Amino acid sequence: MLVPPSDILHDLGQLLSSGEGADVMFEVGGEMFAAHRCVLGARSSVFRAQLLGPMKESTSMCVQIEDMEPKVFQALLYFIYTDSAPEIDDADALGMIQHLLVAADRYGLKRLKLTCEEKLCGYINTSTVATTVALAEQHACPALKEECFRFLESCNNSMLDLITRSSDFEHLARSCPSIMKELIPKLA
Amino acid sequence: MLVPPSDILHDLGQLLSSGEGADVMFEVGGEMFAAHRCVLGARSSVFRAQLLGPMKESTSMCVQIEDMEPKVFQALLYFIYTDSAPEIDDADALGMIQHLLVAADRYGLKRLKLTCEEKLCGYINTSTVATTVALAEQHACPALKEECFRFLESCNNSMLDLITRSSDFEHLARSCPSIMKELIPKLA
Repeated sequence: MLVPPSDILHDLGQLLSSGEGADVMFEVGGEMFAAHRCVLGARSSVFRAQLLGPMKESTSMCVQIEDMEPKVFQALLYFIYTDSAPEIDDADALGMIQHLLVAADRYGLKRLKLTCEEKLCGYINTSTVATTVALAEQHACPALKEECFRFLESCNNSMLDLITRSSDFEHLARSCPSIMKELIPKLA
Repeated sequence: MLVPPSDILHDLGQLLSSGEGADVMFEVGGEMFAAHRCVLGARSSVFRAQLLGPMKESTSMCVQIEDMEPKVFQALLYFIYTDSAPEIDDADALGMIQHLLVAADRYGLKRLKLTCEEKLCGYINTSTVATTVALAEQHACPALKEECFRFLESCNNSMLDLITRSSDFEHLARSCPSIMKELIPKLA
């Protein structure tokens, strides 16, 4: 007798896509998303504090999410319900992963954050490394930062030139001045 | 960089044991259990019809469960949230699995039902086979019934004597008279 594999992730994915029994609405960049407070609270301590608790039990609510694109919030919800990142079929996959990392950090979703960090490691090159270092620094991703530093140490002079003359590098220097001390020995 | 394995089953198990954000209470044999309608509805079509839908969204509710032991309902909830059967540390493990199969059938939890069927296959012997056939017949478990029939065909005369003289066999004949036609060739 064959017991089929676990189907709970499929069931929760269905719950999300159907919106059945939803008790919270999110408004994100003009789009509305229906969700279930207990699922969000079970998965994210930030949502737990925001959505659950004795004072918040009996009414349905609407929450505004600022500073996030609708498609990023949608991917965040998908991960919360199914523990897997959605297929990113997007010309701007890199941008999507970067935004998803920021969102994961904001909502305390450690596993999604690590998933994004791992994906970003695969995108490190001369044109992405400055932005990736800034992201790693601002969102406490030591392993991703380390990976960027390893890449920088492997660069020859003309590559380093390309990196340090870019506007992304300028932005890094401006937004994370403290990291320059760590960076300069790698660039020398 | 190592992304840890999925933690969603752990998170949902925590949600169940904390009862945080619960919006339905069950009263089962004098004991109370807190749960979340959207999780139950996502996992069981029977709970979906009973607990979700436009008319049932805004109030918390209390549901009476008849004809079930509290510990069986507790195991059912645990499976619904975590997709795994709880450790059955019980002198009456067989009875527990039998009751859990009945509960799984009642709430349309196919995977739990198959899990119980598989476990019951391991318990088939001269003193359990009659009850197991009755259970398989009453709850539409063809593979479990087939396994019982295979066991009966392997029995010698003194084993068959033991089986057919038991009160469980009498009970089987009384509660599932139709199955006797199928059984008689196996016992001949």
